[in-house]
Amino acid sequence: MLAIADWQTTWKLNVKPSSSERRPDQARSHNDCAYKSTTYNPFPLIARPASISLTFTPPSSLHGYQRTRVIIFRKSVLGLDVSKKMLEQACKTTAASNIRYERADLEALDLPGGGFDLAYSSLALHYIKDLPGLFANVHAALKPGAHFVFSIEHPIFMAPRNPGWIIDAEGRKSWPVDGYQREGERVTHWLADGVIKQHRTIGTLLNMLIAAGFCIRHVNEWGPSDAEVAAQPALAEERERPMMMLVGVQR
Amino acid sequence: MLAIADWQTTWKLNVKPSSSERRPDQARSHNDCAYKSTTYNPFPLIARPASISLTFTPPSSLHGYQRTRVIIFRKSVLGLDVSKKMLEQACKTTAASNIRYERADLEALDLPGGGFDLAYSSLALHYIKDLPGLFANVHAALKPGAHFVFSIEHPIFMAPRNPGWIIDAEGRKSWPVDGYQREGERVTHWLADGVIKQHRTIGTLLNMLIAAGFCIRHVNEWGPSDAEVAAQPALAEERERPMMMLVGVQR
Repeated sequence: MLAIADWQTTWKLNVKPSSSERRPDQARSHNDCAYKSTTYNPFPLIARPASISLTFTPPSSLHGYQRTRVIIFRKSVLGLDVSKKMLEQACKTTAASNIRYERADLEALDLPGGGFDLAYSSLALHYIKDLPGLFANVHAALKPGAHFVFSIEHPIFMAPRNPGWIIDAEGRKSWPVDGYQREGERVTHWLADGVIKQHRTIGTLLNMLIAAGFCIRHVNEWGPSDAEVAAQPALAEERERPMMMLVGVQR
Repeated sequence: MLAIADWQTTWKLNVKPSSSERRPDQARSHNDCAYKSTTYNPFPLIARPASISLTFTPPSSLHGYQRTRVIIFRKSVLGLDVSKKMLEQACKTTAASNIRYERADLEALDLPGGGFDLAYSSLALHYIKDLPGLFANVHAALKPGAHFVFSIEHPIFMAPRNPGWIIDAEGRKSWPVDGYQREGERVTHWLADGVIKQHRTIGTLLNMLIAAGFCIRHVNEWGPSDAEVAAQPALAEERERPMMMLVGVQR
């Protein structure tokens, strides 16, 4: 799923200038925003995985941002997915008058240029063949200074011919990696048989973003915290190898 | 080894403005330089690995750059290493009046600010504990627009408790990864016993560079080409998992 948001209206409603009288239009450039991964999911659009998300942390001088973090995604959001069922699910879990869902193939997206403040994609980009084309379209759709944040399956997870854990005599898990440099199709059986993913190295992915004109702002190869493992012991194996990557870039 | 170069003099001698009359000072901003990995090693300072290197490719309008690519590294180069033996080796293999070697601990480097056009490090940074400190020092030592390029052991290679290949019944190799999220010391036996390396995820490494003020320009998880494998069949296993990373950033 790709979600595109225009938070300008929200911003004006919610941002309280700091004591230093920072103007909302200064804040909106985001040049001093930092990314942080948390267990809070700022995107109610995205059902899975509940424990993985990227959220913005505000410039310290910018009060009121904590509230906009949620509201951003409740206002003027365009949610795109090629799957009817995913869209139905999104409508069920997150319906609001200011969220619009449209069926669209990310392989041949044609977003209008220059109007959006944020783009977010959750675990979709590893299915896309023409990723340079999509990145170019998203870049053109964003305002200068706007962010594009996404999660994607990690190449370590995706590369192997036969992905799976091996367990040694002491019960320790490891994840055999092979074919890392062999980019291209990986056929898996997940939800349905014969699902085709596109394996790319991290370098290829980041260089594509750079070539599209984005500036890399944050890369997070997500792993669970101690507290998360305590709450959900099955997450422990995610410390051994990363399954997902969270990337934040800026136009 | 960290090498710092000032190529300003060289540049004036060697750069031939293109037909569009681009001035050398425009070219020196490097804003339109691209990185490319090749088998050519532009750094005669760096003995190993001969087949892995980063080189600049010039903006297409800038003739004469092919020659400066070599000369850059033969002029006004400061080579730093904590190891006396490495410095002796460097003096033997690459001695010239314009290359100066100094013994220095990269953990506590104190480069003068703002004077350098390029910094290059080969397979040294995974030994450094205070990498944020080193990045801050290198950043401050470079001129605005200058590049910092380095190779570093890949976290996939470095993470495992017991690094090594497993070979299946058909003779296929895979590289079991574990402990990827467990950052910190890894003790290995390479050249000497008990060599201590510092494992960090790719995300941590890139975020440190971004926090230091660098812009990520290129990330290459090196793997051999078909021609390289044909010439040196032992390299084939390097297709299965990356051993090294090449990173280019810009102040």
